[in-house]
Amino acid sequence: MNMTFTNNKICNLFDIQYPIIQAGMVWCSGWKLAASVSNFGGLGIIGAGSMYPEVFREHIQKCKAATSKPFGVNLPLLYSDIDLLLDIIKEEEVKIIITSAGNPKTYTSKLKEMGCTVFHVVASRKFAQKAIDAGVDGLVAEGFEAGGHNGREEITTFCLVPAIRQITDLPILAAGGVFCGQSMVAAFGLGADGVQIGSLLAVSKESSASKVYKEMVVGSKEGDTKLMLKALHPVRLLRSPFFDAVEKAEARAATVEELEHLLGRARAKKGIFEGNVEEGEFEVGQIAAYLDEIESVEFILNKLLGEYQKAKNEMLSRMED
Amino acid sequence: MNMTFTNNKICNLFDIQYPIIQAGMVWCSGWKLAASVSNFGGLGIIGAGSMYPEVFREHIQKCKAATSKPFGVNLPLLYSDIDLLLDIIKEEEVKIIITSAGNPKTYTSKLKEMGCTVFHVVASRKFAQKAIDAGVDGLVAEGFEAGGHNGREEITTFCLVPAIRQITDLPILAAGGVFCGQSMVAAFGLGADGVQIGSLLAVSKESSASKVYKEMVVGSKEGDTKLMLKALHPVRLLRSPFFDAVEKAEARAATVEELEHLLGRARAKKGIFEGNVEEGEFEVGQIAAYLDEIESVEFILNKLLGEYQKAKNEMLSRMED
Repeated sequence: MNMTFTNNKICNLFDIQYPIIQAGMVWCSGWKLAASVSNFGGLGIIGAGSMYPEVFREHIQKCKAATSKPFGVNLPLLYSDIDLLLDIIKEEEVKIIITSAGNPKTYTSKLKEMGCTVFHVVASRKFAQKAIDAGVDGLVAEGFEAGGHNGREEITTFCLVPAIRQITDLPILAAGGVFCGQSMVAAFGLGADGVQIGSLLAVSKESSASKVYKEMVVGSKEGDTKLMLKALHPVRLLRSPFFDAVEKAEARAATVEELEHLLGRARAKKGIFEGNVEEGEFEVGQIAAYLDEIESVEFILNKLLGEYQKAKNEMLSRMED
Repeated sequence: MNMTFTNNKICNLFDIQYPIIQAGMVWCSGWKLAASVSNFGGLGIIGAGSMYPEVFREHIQKCKAATSKPFGVNLPLLYSDIDLLLDIIKEEEVKIIITSAGNPKTYTSKLKEMGCTVFHVVASRKFAQKAIDAGVDGLVAEGFEAGGHNGREEITTFCLVPAIRQITDLPILAAGGVFCGQSMVAAFGLGADGVQIGSLLAVSKESSASKVYKEMVVGSKEGDTKLMLKALHPVRLLRSPFFDAVEKAEARAATVEELEHLLGRARAKKGIFEGNVEEGEFEVGQIAAYLDEIESVEFILNKLLGEYQKAKNEMLSRMED
């Protein structure tokens, strides 16, 4: 594959070959996945959400050793020791930050003062405006179909991206539902400058998720993911014994306290990282139903770009003369 | 606006100028809306769902008088007197049928024997395969964001359209979430041959919905629609006193019987057609939040096509050299 995106804002801003950004995903996106995506020509992202500060530093250092290309980190703003992470970002001179899950007001300016380029993940046009007001350099518009934590308004990628494009000229990454060449072509059509890819890379060989997780994902079918625990913090989960327990609890209108107790602690680690089917929580996007192979990052992204070129030509043939 | 879609399957199949199909929508899509869309160069659709058989016949006859261009009907297969509707379709020689809400197995062949072109509305790849097996001529792939009745799997337009494109070369219409030029460009990118447009035309001047309904829709904001009554038949509703009552009932895990009692009968007529805010049910898609004007069909579709051309050029500028 050899394509150049000379006028693409995302490629120019991040100095990368393809406007493909890997999503930060708890227990999936360590240095190995990030370095592989960056080496391919996309932008790898280390997900800080599931890491203790010193583990985070170790992953950044290993990623630097594994690639000479740009990479970034995903920083959930609700992280309890966030100032420790900021110190590490400064010391390790990471310059690309995608913030999520929290208010961008305080941390955008701090990160910008450190010389970082800052994108914020949003799930509605209302929050996109808040992020713009906070001074971000770009937005990740993440739809209802995405895996893991998600917005309360349940706005889909297809509605969200053009709605945000109407209010800003900033670079936008379309996130949630990107699994094939058509998705990528459509993302550009919706007004995005690039795509953020989660689940498709969560099942790659280089993802640090367990083999059990990857096999559950590629074996799943339509309707096997659902946005759950809306009374706490909405999260898209894959069917599992824990999923069934939550579904039952919600069907009987369990209280917030009961749901918190049921959720307990460290379920995502147990599920995604340790592959504990009985007790774990398995986060993944709606596209899980359409994934059917566990392959290398290089294989997955080459296939995606091949499909993309074919899909683009097919699209043009359907359009006006 | 003057564009020709010489190689577009939908334009060729239906003999229309633009691959824009108006959705059949209860209490919105009578002869007036259908004829306006057809006269513009799209395909108008009379929605049979909210009509008694003789009313249905009257709308077909009035539509024929109001346009010399092709138009079709939407036929919900769960309609109780469906054989009466089939007789009318035969007698009035309507040749384009979009079937929905039911199993296409029996009626597809009956309609094909009458010389009709048959599209079926599907909300998952699994049901798309069933419709293909039943012999349909094309599919309407309708995502979670669409208004009114919807699929249980909650698959979004952005995921559904390419997933169905992977299994068939039949014409596909993308439905759910189409509200601007970007949506239409993206639909082609996803693998669709055209778009089905609902809510954007439900608030047109020619829609038979009440003024109250149209004003509620254009006045709504993000999060004001929700897929509800999943225990009965999932339906996307707009916030209203009835919406609040359903939300409360579902939060306390009301039984199916309680929900049926709460729903009662003729709520959609009361809301959409009569504009009874207190008692009515108001069906609309997630894009309601992004609509802000009540205009004529001609104005809406000219604006859409203008945006489409601009969005297409912007898309190409973001893509590879």
